[in-house]
Amino acid sequence: MKLAELATPAALVDGTRMQRNIVRMQSHIDALGVRFRPHVKTTKCLPVVQAQLAAGARGITVSTLKEAEQFHAAGIDDILYAVGIVPAKLPKAAALRRAGCALKLLVDSVPAAQAVADFGRAQALDFEVFIEIDCDGHRSGIAPDSDTLLAVGHALQRGGMQVAGVLTHAGSSYDLATPDALQALAEQERHLCVLAAERLRAAGLPCPEVSIGSTPTALSARHLEGVTEVRAGVYVFFDLVMANVGICRTDELALSVLTTVIGHQADKGWVIVDAGWMAMSRDRGTAKQAHDYGYGQVCDVTGRPLHGWLMNGANQEHGIVSHAPTPAADVVERFPVGTQLRVLPNHACATGAQYTEYQVLDTHGRVQAWPRFQGW
Amino acid sequence: MKLAELATPAALVDGTRMQRNIVRMQSHIDALGVRFRPHVKTTKCLPVVQAQLAAGARGITVSTLKEAEQFHAAGIDDILYAVGIVPAKLPKAAALRRAGCALKLLVDSVPAAQAVADFGRAQALDFEVFIEIDCDGHRSGIAPDSDTLLAVGHALQRGGMQVAGVLTHAGSSYDLATPDALQALAEQERHLCVLAAERLRAAGLPCPEVSIGSTPTALSARHLEGVTEVRAGVYVFFDLVMANVGICRTDELALSVLTTVIGHQADKGWVIVDAGWMAMSRDRGTAKQAHDYGYGQVCDVTGRPLHGWLMNGANQEHGIVSHAPTPAADVVERFPVGTQLRVLPNHACATGAQYTEYQVLDTHGRVQAWPRFQGW
Repeated sequence: MKLAELATPAALVDGTRMQRNIVRMQSHIDALGVRFRPHVKTTKCLPVVQAQLAAGARGITVSTLKEAEQFHAAGIDDILYAVGIVPAKLPKAAALRRAGCALKLLVDSVPAAQAVADFGRAQALDFEVFIEIDCDGHRSGIAPDSDTLLAVGHALQRGGMQVAGVLTHAGSSYDLATPDALQALAEQERHLCVLAAERLRAAGLPCPEVSIGSTPTALSARHLEGVTEVRAGVYVFFDLVMANVGICRTDELALSVLTTVIGHQADKGWVIVDAGWMAMSRDRGTAKQAHDYGYGQVCDVTGRPLHGWLMNGANQEHGIVSHAPTPAADVVERFPVGTQLRVLPNHACATGAQYTEYQVLDTHGRVQAWPRFQGW
Repeated sequence: MKLAELATPAALVDGTRMQRNIVRMQSHIDALGVRFRPHVKTTKCLPVVQAQLAAGARGITVSTLKEAEQFHAAGIDDILYAVGIVPAKLPKAAALRRAGCALKLLVDSVPAAQAVADFGRAQALDFEVFIEIDCDGHRSGIAPDSDTLLAVGHALQRGGMQVAGVLTHAGSSYDLATPDALQALAEQERHLCVLAAERLRAAGLPCPEVSIGSTPTALSARHLEGVTEVRAGVYVFFDLVMANVGICRTDELALSVLTTVIGHQADKGWVIVDAGWMAMSRDRGTAKQAHDYGYGQVCDVTGRPLHGWLMNGANQEHGIVSHAPTPAADVVERFPVGTQLRVLPNHACATGAQYTEYQVLDTHGRVQAWPRFQGW
């Protein structure tokens, strides 16, 4: 199939750029001497994950048990579920373990650790459990210098579970925009997670793994002493938020939305396209960054950015494209009804989640559909 | 199944409230003496649409050809595709017509009308085509007093197509918040669409249908002289945006997200739940309204709103719930790990779109899964 034959809107992946992004991250982490465990929440797409594993990734990270089930069914055994586990989800986790999946769980409190231990003992399963560390105050996790850290470790060990290690995610890296700030946060992420591991070991607890990562810090780290694995997700496609953070160029973005012009409001300089917020997602992540791209940067059908043209408004199935700062007077002539355009998204994870498949473009201009899944 | 057995996050529908919302809208439009054609883009869920039809709706409105295909396959024949058609989508439209679907198309320009006519003639199909009218400047459509209106009508008629009528959507109603402003916009929507119909008829063109609607204007209209049908979508569930607009109360919201507490940051008064932006959508539609609900209003598991508790932050699979204006000191005791909560969403269309099924709760506390579809 060719681009012109695709039904729009479509989630278009530039296969060459994707592969280059995969190699870039893998090489960087290889050079730092640790394992790389990609976060598959970005794509939920088996061929993408297979490309990541073929490039050298070891195991995967998931954000839902559905991801774990789907990828385990596809033959991937080493899976880290990097969201705090709750009691009601333990039966599914047990089923995965019994089916041969080396599933790793995550906790950040004594009650959660206790619940895993109680359930595991009752089921005669010794779950591998990571302890989540808070390295930047942005979300979950235990302070690395807290008493709770050791209490959680002891609760797991006493309960007969395997303390797999410590894990952190410097999610606040998305708010940064300079190499110095990113390197400093990468070092903070590394240092605090290693500190937590050392405290557990000093208390006589095992802590084989030290797992860190976010796309911006992973690509900014200068050394990873004491770390055993890095996780990152959005690097596989990158997006406009990441371009604003400064860790990729816009010509490295592998995901765009293919759309068709359906009409105009010529007086206002508006081009109406058939990609609205359902196609782009409601993510406005660049709104608070240096360069606000609205709902996305508009490109021609070959992927060349059209300077000044953004999707500045979005309804469910309508996007409003216009030129800023000066509206264009010739929108009807420039973009006739039926014209195909591409739109680079703010956030590749959110945009991809709106689709049941990616359309992957090869260097010969041929397109192949790669299914992706949704839901929990 | 009971609530406590549901995997979270889940899209929970209060069946009683939904049915009440359906009856409210249908009765209101019935009393105004016109037909009601619900917009099914909100739910994309057959049992919901069947309930709307059972209550008296005549035909449906869709936002994608996939919706048309799915609902036609389920036995619904009278379908209006209310997004401007482009040439590349005409083969699918033709296939639906040939399969017996009374599919109505929409155009708002001479080139689009010409493309439909050229394709229709070549295929020996006389498509029923609506002309889109702009009644409030918010998106697509032709000014009702413009020459283009007549040119489009003539292009369709000359090309052998059926001019089905005129259609408008007062989408700017979402920006209003008083009954007076809503009534004024409802009257403007009616008046300008009827004006367009009268101009077509005066020019010797047929214009049997005058189709208007948005949830806020539909519920605010006092009379509908000259109108033949009303369209609306989000009324079936309502949401926090609609509550801010003032056309529903929060205890009429039928959709909420069921979530589970997975942890805390007690020092900050944060409760971490397993519903992030993937479960709520990225929609922040209340941000610019009188009451900003963050990512949603938190309720207890029975659906009772917890005053002051909002989802104030969201990552992909993590939501951060906190109390404002004063953070609570007792989050661990108040919401232990494993606690189920419900979160009312900003925008029911965007939130529902994140799920492959709704969990519908009946008056006996039993839950039934209703599938919904996604994509294009």
